[in-house]
Amino acid sequence: MKRREFTRLGGLGAVGLWLGGAEGVVPRFSGSTNEMIEGVDLQPLEVDSRRLGDGMRTLAGFGANDEGGIDRVAFSDANVAALEWIEALLTEAGFSVERDLVGNLVARKAGSVDGLPPIVFGSHADSVPGGGNYDGQVGVMGSVEVATVLADARHTTRHPLEVVVFTNEEGGKTGSRALVGEVEPFELDIETASGLTIGEGIRRLGGDPDRLDEARRGEGSMAAFLELHVEQGAVLDQDGIDIGVVAGIVGIMRWNVVAEGMTNHAGTTPMDRRTDALVGSARFIEAVYRTALEMPGRQVATIGIIEPEPGAPNVIAGRVRMTLEIRDLSMDGIGAVFDAVQEQAAAIETDTGVAFSFERFYTSRAAPTDPRLRDMIEDSATELGLSSQRMPSGAGHDAQSMALIGPVGMIFVPSVDGISHAPEERTELADVVNGSNVLLRTLLSLDRQGLE
Amino acid sequence: MKRREFTRLGGLGAVGLWLGGAEGVVPRFSGSTNEMIEGVDLQPLEVDSRRLGDGMRTLAGFGANDEGGIDRVAFSDANVAALEWIEALLTEAGFSVERDLVGNLVARKAGSVDGLPPIVFGSHADSVPGGGNYDGQVGVMGSVEVATVLADARHTTRHPLEVVVFTNEEGGKTGSRALVGEVEPFELDIETASGLTIGEGIRRLGGDPDRLDEARRGEGSMAAFLELHVEQGAVLDQDGIDIGVVAGIVGIMRWNVVAEGMTNHAGTTPMDRRTDALVGSARFIEAVYRTALEMPGRQVATIGIIEPEPGAPNVIAGRVRMTLEIRDLSMDGIGAVFDAVQEQAAAIETDTGVAFSFERFYTSRAAPTDPRLRDMIEDSATELGLSSQRMPSGAGHDAQSMALIGPVGMIFVPSVDGISHAPEERTELADVVNGSNVLLRTLLSLDRQGLE
Repeated sequence: MKRREFTRLGGLGAVGLWLGGAEGVVPRFSGSTNEMIEGVDLQPLEVDSRRLGDGMRTLAGFGANDEGGIDRVAFSDANVAALEWIEALLTEAGFSVERDLVGNLVARKAGSVDGLPPIVFGSHADSVPGGGNYDGQVGVMGSVEVATVLADARHTTRHPLEVVVFTNEEGGKTGSRALVGEVEPFELDIETASGLTIGEGIRRLGGDPDRLDEARRGEGSMAAFLELHVEQGAVLDQDGIDIGVVAGIVGIMRWNVVAEGMTNHAGTTPMDRRTDALVGSARFIEAVYRTALEMPGRQVATIGIIEPEPGAPNVIAGRVRMTLEIRDLSMDGIGAVFDAVQEQAAAIETDTGVAFSFERFYTSRAAPTDPRLRDMIEDSATELGLSSQRMPSGAGHDAQSMALIGPVGMIFVPSVDGISHAPEERTELADVVNGSNVLLRTLLSLDRQGLE
Repeated sequence: MKRREFTRLGGLGAVGLWLGGAEGVVPRFSGSTNEMIEGVDLQPLEVDSRRLGDGMRTLAGFGANDEGGIDRVAFSDANVAALEWIEALLTEAGFSVERDLVGNLVARKAGSVDGLPPIVFGSHADSVPGGGNYDGQVGVMGSVEVATVLADARHTTRHPLEVVVFTNEEGGKTGSRALVGEVEPFELDIETASGLTIGEGIRRLGGDPDRLDEARRGEGSMAAFLELHVEQGAVLDQDGIDIGVVAGIVGIMRWNVVAEGMTNHAGTTPMDRRTDALVGSARFIEAVYRTALEMPGRQVATIGIIEPEPGAPNVIAGRVRMTLEIRDLSMDGIGAVFDAVQEQAAAIETDTGVAFSFERFYTSRAAPTDPRLRDMIEDSATELGLSSQRMPSGAGHDAQSMALIGPVGMIFVPSVDGISHAPEERTELADVVNGSNVLLRTLLSLDRQGLE
């Protein structure tokens, strides 16, 4: 049975937690969640599914294209207009909104306990060219909804709250990387899909590219960062799981691999006298696949590019260039896969005479999420009667940079068929609501308990 | 021990069959080879190694380039000049030379018995751009040398003799294919490396592209065609064999192969949920190699082009295009390999979900040589004390078309390291001499015995 076909019930004291459809759910709040009997919420807060659905639809109108998706690239008119609309919603929810020096939309609300660092949550509102209506947008609208529910409930958290809509996630995670001092000066001159350079774009969003150093935040300057996002993969959808508890954002390493054999005439060189670099490469590709498949862990390894030389139907390839990408939650895990792959390559060389060499050309650090936040997210899902599963995030996110300055937690909701970065990208409203409720509950648990 | 390090001796009554070096061999003829005692030549004819070496060097001067090879593409000034020089040599050898309607140089000499069809022999004098000094040239100069030895010996063969230097072998075997009516009208408009179209080139060589139909020769119009050629592969060189007895010119079929999997994000798709078209293709490449290697026979199969789509380091390939080429001495053999390959592809599809489809885009018919001529070539080599081996010709030759109008025989001599179509192409003079002696002896056997 598919997850989406369930009608969800259950959860601690929740009645009709998910009513679905167009009716929506009237917040059944009747007091502050600070009113608890021994830590148990009598009437827990919930998001308003109709309002959230309406919000998603409205946001999808900014930059809508003919294919049913959006062209809301960073710094575009649609991006600017969407941010203004989001700003208005957050202002209405009692947040004071500003743009920081990198153009991030930052909405703040004070907490009830002095001196506590803020709980930060949010995502991004820009898209790839020809993108869909969920990547980034689920996290933004979920965060806005959480902010609104809290305002409607007149619930004041102990910690200050801060909603962030990050600048140019799709074009280089500029907004979050600037907060940890990772944006290099040359990046400001890169022309983006909007036609503006990143520097010009930052200025357009209200930032100041000349003062990015001042945008930097210190380690410990936040209690935690929470991000709700679509999975962009098919695991939750295929397995009928409601919520992904992200164990971390994988690290990535990429290599150029060269296989050297012997170019020869395909007609005059008998099979047993060939040193066919493509045959050697074929064995290598299989070995990479088997290694990543069979080693314990969630690592993935991919060869996506292969170019034989000289590349003619009647010539045995003397040289083959490939790319090898390995991702894992730990850089040691990546190293272990690469070591195994190199051993296999050496064995293939012994067998076939085809020699392999490797040159690394890209590295992205792994960012584990905080184990205590994983537990809180999992508990929140369980309390809501939702199934959950721990999983790596195979794609990069703003949370990756935020992990450098404090604990992060990430909540995934299913992507139908795993489709992402395309107009066909889709997440059911039920799942957007589930994810937002998990975000709300996790935020409240975190606010109550802290991370002691 | 390498073949080239031998000093060859032996052969029926031959003394110092290969003297080598710059001294050369004075023809030790003392009468007609028609003077035989019970079919045994008392003093067999032999080629003059010095004259043959000088001829090879002179021919290599036409179109010589800075890399030590030649640019003597069909229809070029160098091609025209070389043909004029060859014409003079054959005229001196008592042949009457003309250009036929496709520009082939055809040199004829009458035989002693009325009504017999001619024994035809020859090769081509054009090169690929940036070619070497042996491909085609060994056969041409060997044939000129045979003609000259016969003239010096005043030996009149029973059959008429005909030396042919074929037009534009490297650019489509135009000369030989026109003799069997295979040149299509559109080919005349193809621009060649010379800058001329094939039609213009034929005219330049003295032919008439408007009358190619009349160039056609009838089946049975020749007693046989003999071609001496360099192997263009490394088998003879690696195995230390003097003479290749060509069993036939392989047929060729080529297919476009498409492997269909599922494009996916390389980060978010676990290893056990992939339908990676490149991993499926890797298994296919290995299966093709194993099939051609392990089936009995001399067939070869090659994948020389592979293009994954979309082709990015971080995307699992959803589709892969490849070329598959199979060559064998018989078209049935090619079919058997292809059947086996298709079976393997079906098994890979069952295992991996990657589906394969095949579209044939090129066919070249196999051309077996005449078994009686193979025996004569082999016997000639043995009589000369030369080692020989039966082998397919993996590359195409003018003999392929000639096989449609009569029996053909082909003699291979070693290519050092198998290099071909490059300035580094090389065949030792000793081997050019050996091959020419085998050509001479085979021609004389054939002339005496016929193919009854």
